[in-house]
Amino acid sequence: MNDDELLAAARAVQANAYAPYSQFPVGAALRTTSGAMFVGCNYESAAFPQGVCAEGGAIGAMIAGGERQIATIVTVCDVDTNPTPCGGCRQKIREFATPATRIVAYGASGVFREYSIDELLPDSFGPDQLPGH
Amino acid sequence: MNDDELLAAARAVQANAYAPYSQFPVGAALRTTSGAMFVGCNYESAAFPQGVCAEGGAIGAMIAGGERQIATIVTVCDVDTNPTPCGGCRQKIREFATPATRIVAYGASGVFREYSIDELLPDSFGPDQLPGH
Amino acid sequence: MNDDELLAAARAVQANAYAPYSQFPVGAALRTTSGAMFVGCNYESAAFPQGVCAEGGAIGAMIAGGERQIATIVTVCDVDTNPTPCGGCRQKIREFATPATRIVAYGASGVFREYSIDELLPDSFGPDQLPGH
Amino acid sequence: MNDDELLAAARAVQANAYAPYSQFPVGAALRTTSGAMFVGCNYESAAFPQGVCAEGGAIGAMIAGGERQIATIVTVCDVDTNPTPCGGCRQKIREFATPATRIVAYGASGVFREYSIDELLPDSFGPDQLPGH
Repeated sequence: MNDDELLAAARAVQANAYAPYSQFPVGAALRTTSGAMFVGCNYESAAFPQGVCAEGGAIGAMIAGGERQIATIVTVCDVDTNPTPCGGCRQKIREFATPATRIVAYGASGVFREYSIDELLPDSFGPDQLPGH
Repeated sequence: MNDDELLAAARAVQANAYAPYSQFPVGAALRTTSGAMFVGCNYESAAFPQGVCAEGGAIGAMIAGGERQIATIVTVCDVDTNPTPCGGCRQKIREFATPATRIVAYGASGVFREYSIDELLPDSFGPDQLPGH
Repeated sequence: MNDDELLAAARAVQANAYAPYSQFPVGAALRTTSGAMFVGCNYESAAFPQGVCAEGGAIGAMIAGGERQIATIVTVCDVDTNPTPCGGCRQKIREFATPATRIVAYGASGVFREYSIDELLPDSFGPDQLPGH
Repeated sequence: MNDDELLAAARAVQANAYAPYSQFPVGAALRTTSGAMFVGCNYESAAFPQGVCAEGGAIGAMIAGGERQIATIVTVCDVDTNPTPCGGCRQKIREFATPATRIVAYGASGVFREYSIDELLPDSFGPDQLPGH
């Protein structure tokens, strides 16, 4: 599968990130299993825990758009060492991932690595653990 | 100002909320000071703190869209008592609000009340408290 | 009621805050309706949304200690303008507050203001809005 | 190393969890590299994202107690399939972990598995990615 379109979209939306406190802009673009694309960038808050990461924004756009299953999500940021989703985002992705979901992390110099959700969040806690709901 | 378009958009996106754990779908639609509209709905996570509220999603869409100032945000949910943004969302709105920003909360039966950010989050902590950034 | 003991405890625990990203240490000390005292300070995360505020830490200590009702919570930080709990913390306090709960915000120069939860979070969303649970 | 004392403490504090919305109580107990023990349990909020997990509470207690390095953290919950920390907690642990930190997850029937932080959160984002701070 070709990720060029997702990568371009992620880089474009990264430019809109609101990251005055971390100075760490991130962009994300995902394609759903139906083929639709959604994007997001991080935005921060003076009350740090109230910010939302780029992946969280792209997922929010997907849900608002009426879709719930991620085929591929591409993330971009400006470091080359472990430019990967944080644990919170790995959990958010988990809720809407399948074993076939691809998470592709790009750093400053290009692609870093591609993961499955099980590689990013092994033995994950998830919806199966809340059976009553 | 007429909020009908925002209300309709908020009700429409509320239908897409992913709220299997709370059974409490929420929709939000905002207009920026430039006139653009963005929407969001809540999505939850089996790890509850990793969910994102509807207002947080609409703000994420706004930031991804290259805008940063909310003129009006409309929220809709299905109760009639205090169908207002949670404290976390009040703080998120705070970051992108001005004294003129209108927050209009709708419940099941119609409009509940309209607020300024200072009415929703009095004496608020915000960007002014982090001057070094 | 005399808040000197809570203030001293909040100032003491503020010194332990882990705030390398915001440089904004906060301390909190609360007394429950049974008379027990619990403290907390903020700790941050490189993934900013994963940090926890001081009030959130003091509430966590209270819950771990087997109590659930806040009589008074004192917060301390090092600015004088609106040294108040963020919206997220107002919401956390809301869950364990009564109309009689006192929230006392101290800044660099001393007490800023005392609030009820309804003053800090007017028309609040809360447990009453999730009746099925 | 013997984890019996941590396990007993985690089970004891789990009984104090405030989990009316998920009905999923969790307990955590950690020992720092200096030998001190701290505990935490989850507490939820009607505004779900404002809750704090058990691991987050134990870390908050550790920070409030003036310590910053986790030697071992034990978690306990009442399922047997993947009774592991959520991604948000893996990230919180990451901030205060070393390669030697042990994370030991217990389910309903006993120990599930022991992990290093690199096993739980491979290729992790962390403090090294925010060098300016």
